[in-house]
Amino acid sequence: MSEFKLTPIEDMEAATQRLLETGAKVGADSWQMRVKNQTPHCKFGEQGICCRICAMGPCRITPKAPRGICGCDAHGIVGRNYLKFTAGGGATHSDHGREICNTLYHSEPGGAYQVKDPEKLKKLAKEWGVETEGKDIYDLAHEMALLGLEEYGKVFGYQRFLDRMPEGQKEKLIELELAPRAIDREVSASLHTTHMGCSSLPEQLVRQSIRMGMADGWGGSMAGTEFSDVMFGTPKPVDTEANLGVMVAENVNIIVHGHDPSLSEKVCDWAEDPEMLALAKSVGAKGITVSGVCCTSNEVAMRRGIPMAGNFLSQENVVLTGACEAIVVDVQCIFPALGPLSKCFHTKFITTSPIARMPDSEFIRFDAGTANEKAKQIVEMAVMNFKNRKPELVHIPQLKQKATVGYSVEAIVKTLDGVTNSQVDETGTTKPLLECITSGVIRGAVAMVGCNNPKVRPDYAHIELMKKLIANDIIVISSGCASQAAAKAGLMDKRAKDLCGAGLKRVCELADIPPVLHMGSCVDISRMMVLAATLAKDSGLQINQLPVVGCAPEWMSEKAVSIGNYVVGTGLDTFLGVDPYVEGSSEMQWWLTEGVRQWTGSAYTVEKDIEKLTDLMIERIEEKRAALGI
Amino acid sequence: MSEFKLTPIEDMEAATQRLLETGAKVGADSWQMRVKNQTPHCKFGEQGICCRICAMGPCRITPKAPRGICGCDAHGIVGRNYLKFTAGGGATHSDHGREICNTLYHSEPGGAYQVKDPEKLKKLAKEWGVETEGKDIYDLAHEMALLGLEEYGKVFGYQRFLDRMPEGQKEKLIELELAPRAIDREVSASLHTTHMGCSSLPEQLVRQSIRMGMADGWGGSMAGTEFSDVMFGTPKPVDTEANLGVMVAENVNIIVHGHDPSLSEKVCDWAEDPEMLALAKSVGAKGITVSGVCCTSNEVAMRRGIPMAGNFLSQENVVLTGACEAIVVDVQCIFPALGPLSKCFHTKFITTSPIARMPDSEFIRFDAGTANEKAKQIVEMAVMNFKNRKPELVHIPQLKQKATVGYSVEAIVKTLDGVTNSQVDETGTTKPLLECITSGVIRGAVAMVGCNNPKVRPDYAHIELMKKLIANDIIVISSGCASQAAAKAGLMDKRAKDLCGAGLKRVCELADIPPVLHMGSCVDISRMMVLAATLAKDSGLQINQLPVVGCAPEWMSEKAVSIGNYVVGTGLDTFLGVDPYVEGSSEMQWWLTEGVRQWTGSAYTVEKDIEKLTDLMIERIEEKRAALGI
Repeated sequence: MSEFKLTPIEDMEAATQRLLETGAKVGADSWQMRVKNQTPHCKFGEQGICCRICAMGPCRITPKAPRGICGCDAHGIVGRNYLKFTAGGGATHSDHGREICNTLYHSEPGGAYQVKDPEKLKKLAKEWGVETEGKDIYDLAHEMALLGLEEYGKVFGYQRFLDRMPEGQKEKLIELELAPRAIDREVSASLHTTHMGCSSLPEQLVRQSIRMGMADGWGGSMAGTEFSDVMFGTPKPVDTEANLGVMVAENVNIIVHGHDPSLSEKVCDWAEDPEMLALAKSVGAKGITVSGVCCTSNEVAMRRGIPMAGNFLSQENVVLTGACEAIVVDVQCIFPALGPLSKCFHTKFITTSPIARMPDSEFIRFDAGTANEKAKQIVEMAVMNFKNRKPELVHIPQLKQKATVGYSVEAIVKTLDGVTNSQVDETGTTKPLLECITSGVIRGAVAMVGCNNPKVRPDYAHIELMKKLIANDIIVISSGCASQAAAKAGLMDKRAKDLCGAGLKRVCELADIPPVLHMGSCVDISRMMVLAATLAKDSGLQINQLPVVGCAPEWMSEKAVSIGNYVVGTGLDTFLGVDPYVEGSSEMQWWLTEGVRQWTGSAYTVEKDIEKLTDLMIERIEEKRAALGI
Repeated sequence: MSEFKLTPIEDMEAATQRLLETGAKVGADSWQMRVKNQTPHCKFGEQGICCRICAMGPCRITPKAPRGICGCDAHGIVGRNYLKFTAGGGATHSDHGREICNTLYHSEPGGAYQVKDPEKLKKLAKEWGVETEGKDIYDLAHEMALLGLEEYGKVFGYQRFLDRMPEGQKEKLIELELAPRAIDREVSASLHTTHMGCSSLPEQLVRQSIRMGMADGWGGSMAGTEFSDVMFGTPKPVDTEANLGVMVAENVNIIVHGHDPSLSEKVCDWAEDPEMLALAKSVGAKGITVSGVCCTSNEVAMRRGIPMAGNFLSQENVVLTGACEAIVVDVQCIFPALGPLSKCFHTKFITTSPIARMPDSEFIRFDAGTANEKAKQIVEMAVMNFKNRKPELVHIPQLKQKATVGYSVEAIVKTLDGVTNSQVDETGTTKPLLECITSGVIRGAVAMVGCNNPKVRPDYAHIELMKKLIANDIIVISSGCASQAAAKAGLMDKRAKDLCGAGLKRVCELADIPPVLHMGSCVDISRMMVLAATLAKDSGLQINQLPVVGCAPEWMSEKAVSIGNYVVGTGLDTFLGVDPYVEGSSEMQWWLTEGVRQWTGSAYTVEKDIEKLTDLMIERIEEKRAALGI
């Protein structure tokens, strides 16, 4: 094996600096410049004490003005803003899940979308009590897709996936009014609760925030994950590479960015098409390289090994290489800045969803019915754009790392089966992992998730936290933009085992895994919930007893708060490195960091000092261990 | 007839001033004081150019910082805020409608909730293609309630009530992607569209805003109205009184406030109960007076003649009288200020819904199953509180006016039948009204709706606009807090006909109606949509050809913007006296005041000068007439 070394954050930053120089040449704007223009931020907004919920205001809380015009105090204002923020995130993730269900509903044999994992579909059908025997797999797919769609609007009952929880947990959530009803209903209920003249009691606002989050994590996101697997395959370990160096100067470079794999999968398909490859050669390119940014990158990396160009805050960098023929996006976390930025280069900025329409983009409306022709059109457009490159602007930083990605729950269980003595041990369970935890070989697990955010040195918190955790024999599972941070640094290279404590290192060697396991995109945090539930059931514990915590050190989006709420709602302590605009209310802070524990046995910790954040997580994991007597 | 005189706004203001003196004695806060503390408002917020959609910010647009950190410009930020605002309102109205459907679903013979208008239920069933023959009325009620509930979450199709539109309009809306799908789905889609990194194109943000509004007006609000009528009776003209003088010093005074008639109807029932009346006498009161504030007031006024104590900005006044034993609230537009304010008096502030929980209130959870016992408990509590009054604080301003309220579409048609020559004319249509309009006896109609807002001299705009409109032979239909403004002034007294132009005066005399017709609460703006659709169908025109406009001169809530969007989406020009936080974007302003016209044939006008606003409405009505050649 060649010598292995992590990519230092300083090297990544130097590469970005070099790209920004190109940007300066062509008069491009950048998030780095915009951060300067937007700093300092409004203190009222940062503390959550600015209210724009009605047109009597806006109102701001100050010592001289302790209440808004309606009489709402800081606690109510912060609480409403928090619930609205959550609803934004929960609706967004869930609408992604809806689109996946809708795509599955339109799947057909030989069509643009097919059932690639019929076994998973049958397993889900059994779970939902749907007859599978003698049923055509596409009939089953359509039936399940429809049931999935009905979870968004059913009149009665709670989310089906709650039945995956350890015994008694669903019932407890129902009793506490934390169990989510129809997904979209929870969104509407949240907006009703936060309307002018509705709830201003922090307890109720936090309660509905958790419930809203649960509708995401155990509803929309989980549907998104499961049915994506049915259509595109359940991820299994696959090798890939990460960082801007995955772009190839001689090739047509297509960047896929956004979230829904329905688009990116088709773009990847067509980029491999001989006709397109021939076209690429005809315009002087050696081939076509598709690489990803943000969660779309996670989706196609873990199912097809498509390289990961970067994460959220790298999205301008891919254009700044001057070698990006097209950046093709669907929904969420897409900088509107890509519009004007792409105009400084030859890059085509292609938007595809009515949910995410942006100025200065080419809009090619993409849907299940026309997926193949539109994807072909997009790839063709990118290829034909190769000749418009300005060679003097081309510079691709030569940074990349190997990564093994694709650790779905199924893949983790299969990996564990590999280290099981099948003569004496049960297979198909998480018990080998539980044994490692019980024995202390592994101390626990941290789910590292979330975006990046200029308020935190980008990627630094993710990488430093992960390094310290694995050195302390805590295994890391990751998703979202935390994953690319890990992969870019090299932490998803199996050789990163050498950075682990002795126990985790041994586990990595035995199981042949990297110490940071890539579990997917941001909707795939639902996989982590399933893993936690499985661990709890396999150990006879409740989820909130496990030495497992969640962490989002660099989060930025509404979705992240929705996620945080369902992770806490599920029973896992959650550690944030960025404050969710609640500093302005001691009561809201108390409810989120203490009060909610009476309901779920878990709560939030917000700590901006990354060193302290790590220590607090380790401390919490050790507390959980102590409570279990292990 | 005794001499009739409008109550001048100055008299109302003097009465308020006197109440504020009582407040000052007991150290009470007031919205008037809070407005001072909150002025000037944040300019960024007022212009809509402050973005808190992700945690990279908040960002604010300035000449030096023309884009947020993600690159979103002022147009995208204003547009997203506008769509989020709309979603808040649409979700809120619709959730009210859902509760009504749910209550109907639990109706039973002899139960707390019954079917009071079986004919209306059957008519709705026929409209929705549901068999009524030989069906028990409660079975039918439950079947229809379930269908109503399914409109919130159905997987396929558009809102059922769109079939009420004139021929071709629904199809056109579908083609334009303005026709609402499942109600809650539009809420989620709106929040998805406004998530970080989704739409920043004003066109798309306005399109979804209209669609979201339509899901409210032709979905949730319309369901709320129609099924409320089924349960509580379709309003017909009834006499009542308005202004604080309706409270009776010798009686136990219960104020009902909020929106959902399920609570207020039961409170009214129990306040008439002999046992409660006896109890009241036993504690030294002469009787029990229930009066209303805000839209709950509209609901019980138009079905039972319950007097209207005031509107939105009068809610503190009722407590300040010192004679309010209990203010009982459900959802929406309830000042959190009522908590601390009620503590300065003997008043019980009773919250009843988990959607609207507030500090410093007594929470008595109210639902269909326990409605009778809870309503009794509430009335009892109020009665028993009579003895805690502090006589030295009691002062009820002796201002009130007579009003005839309850002009549902059915009541209007019935009134028109009364002036029809049944020998030669068709009955059960709006044709007599159309004839008045065609002949020019009435020039047109204005739907006056909305809240009050301290940014406008409260009630002044409503009253002055109405006076000028009726003087110009324009009939006014009103709902929401605009109605109480009219009623308090005396404009819903039939004698107000003398303030009309000659044509409208003659119509009022012939039909025996006031010149301002009370059509209900804010969800009842759906009645106005039905009326407009009926007028269009009866005349063979499209809605956007009618000389009818909407106006909300003092609006303040998210609901109001949702309403505005569906009024415009329906085809009626809408005039606002308060800017919906869009001043910061020329593009959003263009889309709302011009661009949307290409889709619906109608648009917004925002004009803060009330005189000008009236002139613009009259001008628009005359333009519509000219286009029709009438």
